[in-house]
Amino acid sequence: MSQLYLEKVRDVLKNKKSSMVFNYTVPDLWNCFDYSKEKFIKTPDHELIVNPYDFFQSLIDNYLLPKKKSNIDYLQSYAKLTNRQLKQRNYLPGDWIKNSILYSTMIRTSAAWDHDRSGYLEDNNIYHMCETGSFVKMLALLPLLKKMGIDVVYMLPISLFSLKDKKGDLGSPYGVKSFTKLDPNLKDSLTDQATTVEEEFKAFVEACHILDMKVIIDIIPRTNSVDSDLIRTHPEWFYWIKASDYDNYSTPTIPGIPPTATPTLDMMEKVYAEPDTLRHINMFQYDPKTQDSELWKKVKRKKNLSKAIMEAYDLRVAPAFSDYINDPQPPWTDVTFFRMYEDFPKATRQFLDTTKRPPYILNDTIKSNMYPGETPNIELWKKLADIIPEYQRHYGIDGARIDMGHALPKELLTMIMSKARDIDSDFTFIAEELQPQNADKARENNYNLIISNGFIMEPRFFEGKLLEFMHQSIDLPLPVFAMGDTHDTPRLAAREGGTTTAKLLTILNYFMPEAVPFINSGQEVYETQPMNTGLDARDNEQFMLNQTDPYYGKLALFDKYQFHYTNPHRWELPDILDFIKPIRQKYLPQITNKKYFIPLYGKNHPNTLIGLSYFKKTKKKEHNVLIVLANSHPYEEVKRAIPIHDLRHQSQNNAMVGSLLFSTHEDPRPFTQFFDDNTLDIHLGRGEIKIIEL
Amino acid sequence: MSQLYLEKVRDVLKNKKSSMVFNYTVPDLWNCFDYSKEKFIKTPDHELIVNPYDFFQSLIDNYLLPKKKSNIDYLQSYAKLTNRQLKQRNYLPGDWIKNSILYSTMIRTSAAWDHDRSGYLEDNNIYHMCETGSFVKMLALLPLLKKMGIDVVYMLPISLFSLKDKKGDLGSPYGVKSFTKLDPNLKDSLTDQATTVEEEFKAFVEACHILDMKVIIDIIPRTNSVDSDLIRTHPEWFYWIKASDYDNYSTPTIPGIPPTATPTLDMMEKVYAEPDTLRHINMFQYDPKTQDSELWKKVKRKKNLSKAIMEAYDLRVAPAFSDYINDPQPPWTDVTFFRMYEDFPKATRQFLDTTKRPPYILNDTIKSNMYPGETPNIELWKKLADIIPEYQRHYGIDGARIDMGHALPKELLTMIMSKARDIDSDFTFIAEELQPQNADKARENNYNLIISNGFIMEPRFFEGKLLEFMHQSIDLPLPVFAMGDTHDTPRLAAREGGTTTAKLLTILNYFMPEAVPFINSGQEVYETQPMNTGLDARDNEQFMLNQTDPYYGKLALFDKYQFHYTNPHRWELPDILDFIKPIRQKYLPQITNKKYFIPLYGKNHPNTLIGLSYFKKTKKKEHNVLIVLANSHPYEEVKRAIPIHDLRHQSQNNAMVGSLLFSTHEDPRPFTQFFDDNTLDIHLGRGEIKIIEL
Repeated sequence: MSQLYLEKVRDVLKNKKSSMVFNYTVPDLWNCFDYSKEKFIKTPDHELIVNPYDFFQSLIDNYLLPKKKSNIDYLQSYAKLTNRQLKQRNYLPGDWIKNSILYSTMIRTSAAWDHDRSGYLEDNNIYHMCETGSFVKMLALLPLLKKMGIDVVYMLPISLFSLKDKKGDLGSPYGVKSFTKLDPNLKDSLTDQATTVEEEFKAFVEACHILDMKVIIDIIPRTNSVDSDLIRTHPEWFYWIKASDYDNYSTPTIPGIPPTATPTLDMMEKVYAEPDTLRHINMFQYDPKTQDSELWKKVKRKKNLSKAIMEAYDLRVAPAFSDYINDPQPPWTDVTFFRMYEDFPKATRQFLDTTKRPPYILNDTIKSNMYPGETPNIELWKKLADIIPEYQRHYGIDGARIDMGHALPKELLTMIMSKARDIDSDFTFIAEELQPQNADKARENNYNLIISNGFIMEPRFFEGKLLEFMHQSIDLPLPVFAMGDTHDTPRLAAREGGTTTAKLLTILNYFMPEAVPFINSGQEVYETQPMNTGLDARDNEQFMLNQTDPYYGKLALFDKYQFHYTNPHRWELPDILDFIKPIRQKYLPQITNKKYFIPLYGKNHPNTLIGLSYFKKTKKKEHNVLIVLANSHPYEEVKRAIPIHDLRHQSQNNAMVGSLLFSTHEDPRPFTQFFDDNTLDIHLGRGEIKIIEL
Repeated sequence: MSQLYLEKVRDVLKNKKSSMVFNYTVPDLWNCFDYSKEKFIKTPDHELIVNPYDFFQSLIDNYLLPKKKSNIDYLQSYAKLTNRQLKQRNYLPGDWIKNSILYSTMIRTSAAWDHDRSGYLEDNNIYHMCETGSFVKMLALLPLLKKMGIDVVYMLPISLFSLKDKKGDLGSPYGVKSFTKLDPNLKDSLTDQATTVEEEFKAFVEACHILDMKVIIDIIPRTNSVDSDLIRTHPEWFYWIKASDYDNYSTPTIPGIPPTATPTLDMMEKVYAEPDTLRHINMFQYDPKTQDSELWKKVKRKKNLSKAIMEAYDLRVAPAFSDYINDPQPPWTDVTFFRMYEDFPKATRQFLDTTKRPPYILNDTIKSNMYPGETPNIELWKKLADIIPEYQRHYGIDGARIDMGHALPKELLTMIMSKARDIDSDFTFIAEELQPQNADKARENNYNLIISNGFIMEPRFFEGKLLEFMHQSIDLPLPVFAMGDTHDTPRLAAREGGTTTAKLLTILNYFMPEAVPFINSGQEVYETQPMNTGLDARDNEQFMLNQTDPYYGKLALFDKYQFHYTNPHRWELPDILDFIKPIRQKYLPQITNKKYFIPLYGKNHPNTLIGLSYFKKTKKKEHNVLIVLANSHPYEEVKRAIPIHDLRHQSQNNAMVGSLLFSTHEDPRPFTQFFDDNTLDIHLGRGEIKIIEL
């Protein structure tokens, strides 16, 4: 085996470690690897003053590398490097995700820190270091993730994104400019030019694999930035409008159709009949190469291509917009759609004379799964189907989430998945599917997991949605995320009940039947500011922080942001999750199989009271039943007597009293007793969770 | 002229300024010298990240040295270097103090800062720098002092003090071990060994003199530390007890005499009649040299002299205690008294057989002004009278406060003063005299100023003591300090009314008739924690800070302490004082001469309402009357009509409306009007001060 990239990074850090004194801080939460006490000073603000070169070197040398096995290439998928063989019934390649706990991270934010304490996240701080997150700095989060039981790191897009018409300080990583180039800002400044961003990502994947963590990326094959690198080679893959008309570009409004309607065929007839649609469609132009291929030979060599096209052709790439009819959102000015077919949609061609008409963006051409053409843009499809294999070949990633997968032609989706699984027969796919009722379709498409709507349901415990979410999840053909917090939604700690709710749901999610726990970076330290206000946001969602907070009003998806890693309660959830992870591990086969699940409920059962139980089939007379009781009501205690005939039947332990393994409360309400063999006497404090074993 | 020491320090800083990056902070309040904006980063905590070498070099080069005149030796007293000639009636040498504004500083505290933000004041921070205050760092406070109109820097003791049985982290600078050696901790670490502490003090005095500020030191001729350097050469100047008896050492208790009684002769008869007095007196022993002069020749060469004396003689220097009879304070274990006379007090010799009796400490021998002996210890007296001349010769200081001057033999006091004034005929002396009724005696003794009791009176505005203090001060033969805050007392901002009171009194003191404004370092940033709890302290006085504050319970006189220079209101008082100093300056001859003072009061005048006015005799028809109105009531507004016949008579301006020069309130109560020529209509907000000119 040649040297690991992780070792190369270590060597660079070691070489660059000078005798210079650094007043450089990291949050104490970044030290879950027992960094030598003589090497840091702890400040009263819960930061450690460290020599950064030594800190990260020591992390690699003393925490990561000792766990490495020799002669293993860690840049293969975890399935391949461990030769994992899972032989369950109905096992689909990638179904290992069902047993996992995911951590969702946008590295530029998760590993960001104001290391020089200047009050700002600088690109170039007093040490000429960049303070936003990088792959190398993200290594320091891995011990924390390990502590919390995380075994999958899911990364928001890490590829080069566009800065054209960018939103916020930094722009959104969802405006991808090049699928296969990495975002150069994820390169660390500690390592200077001695390692490339690619090498540092490799080191990061190696570190994850060494820690038995899988790595999942986020790909966005439906759209690209309006200054995509692909325009230079393939202008015909994009939609074009007159640059001088740009300011008039807007989504057509169709009277008589309700807002945010799915574009079914009957609706599309109406859409095409509407004059505003024609106005819109008439804006589109042929691509520059088609218009004048001689001129194109010159123009395509220009450095600022967008500008050159505008000057030579008066053309601009048309912005994308929502696939719903009458969606009130304005066009998405930073991204555009790919032309999936060379011709017009087969089903809607009847509504319009398409002779000599340039291709256009409309609800039907967007939703090409529902409205395919007849001539696929095969060269483009090959390109899109090769994104994941690129990452597999170079970095050995383990899975991908497909952004807007539902708007891709079914054949393209199949192509994308099969190409990936040709390389790694256990590659996992997560569908960007928020509707549990679409779970069947997702499974048919060979997805391993859907996101579902936990973030909508769980925080609505007062309305019984948390209870409903638990029951709904077990009837689905594939697992969903057990989650209440994503990069698009309000933060759990900003929901009704605040940190009480955040704590309860984060713990409860580790025990949700057939669901996969999902932690959104920052959630573990009770972050209240959302990363984006894309879903379920309230009016003031963007302003969850104190006005004096330097990140007041900032959204991580667009702006420089650092999580409040030094808040006084920062260790609470990591410590709890550390404590409960072996309990989850012990009952994992039961938690992931509804056969062993018995919900607990009684007469007039309150919406806010959740009772879960799992039983193990064992031959020995030992504890074999796990009970999780959660009072999601943050303001009231609850007392109940719950019949447990079914559960008692499964218990191999005849004790009348269970043993309390865990409670969120330091002084839990009187220990849950069994009135008689068949009744459980429940008393829980406000927002309390109790974990009991029989 | 040879190079200034200030220039030498500047050169050292310049030479040591490396290309190394420093993450070193100073409070933004330390930058009142317009340090170049490109050179620092301002943190949200109101600190500046600077290169310390450059910061202090720039202070010297761009603020201090440009104000220097050529060919002046700044190490002479300010009076000598300016050839000041004051020709007022009754002018006593040193009376210039009457026109001054003093700033009292304990440099180790005033210039202390946690520069590396580790949360602690380290002797050796991450840059191997000392974070407590030094003469060099104190230079950075001078622009702030200048802004506030300060023209005298009064320093608490700066000489080498004892660490034997020290109190707190650092020990008290009042336990002097050597009069003429400087405290080595006041040497800065930035300058390493390139300059000595003596040179740095010289640089500091030069800087003060360049800024037209005078320098006053604090000397303590009555006591010395129990391990005084003088013991080695003069053991007979001290009082001794058996070391093995040390634990039984206590102040005699005299039944029938009230606590804290001044030891008048009638009382001393009683004291000597008391068996406990005899017990106490019998503990005393002859000094080691007198006991065995041969042995002494060997012992005095030992490095640890106290230990050697204890081992060879079983002797220890006797601790000092209060000069009051039945003072409840325990003995002061860190200091002892000097033996002022070779014999016993003349007046009390009758009460005891003094034949073959070793000298002892008792209320009479302590208060040697009241109980002189017949044979002065001339050699000691010469030594004590040469302390100030030492500082004059080397540093060109301008004055001194004499600690416990009231307990010195009158002839010794005269000797001390005349020696100093032989060198500088305008040398000023401040008496440690807290009783205004002793002002006459102090003036007889040629003092220029007494401390008096402002700190007791001013904060008791509800009881009318503030008003009383104003009236009392003008009838004294010498000025008192206009002050509410000293290093021994509660902080003004910790008194009733908090910062409202602190603000009002600090401003009002700039206009107190015939009094000298005095600001105790930290007062300008509303510090609430006292430096010592020696005077007027309440039960909880030591615990004014939040428990989470790193300096909770710490007293600057003994412990490492830094002022809260970065509090949100830090600029308020400096800005106000900056604004009012020219007003004071304009009326200074009037403020310092009661002839031009007219108090303003009306019927049923509230205790809490202070009205001052001063008039100028001018020939021109111009503003010539200054009115200062202060509502010291922090919780209630006040409205009053006040007759101003006398004042109107002096006004050369017939306007019916004064012009408001200043108010503490952003939105002052309706402007003070004149009902008719002879009535002033006053309306003041809570704690408001208005300054008006007619």
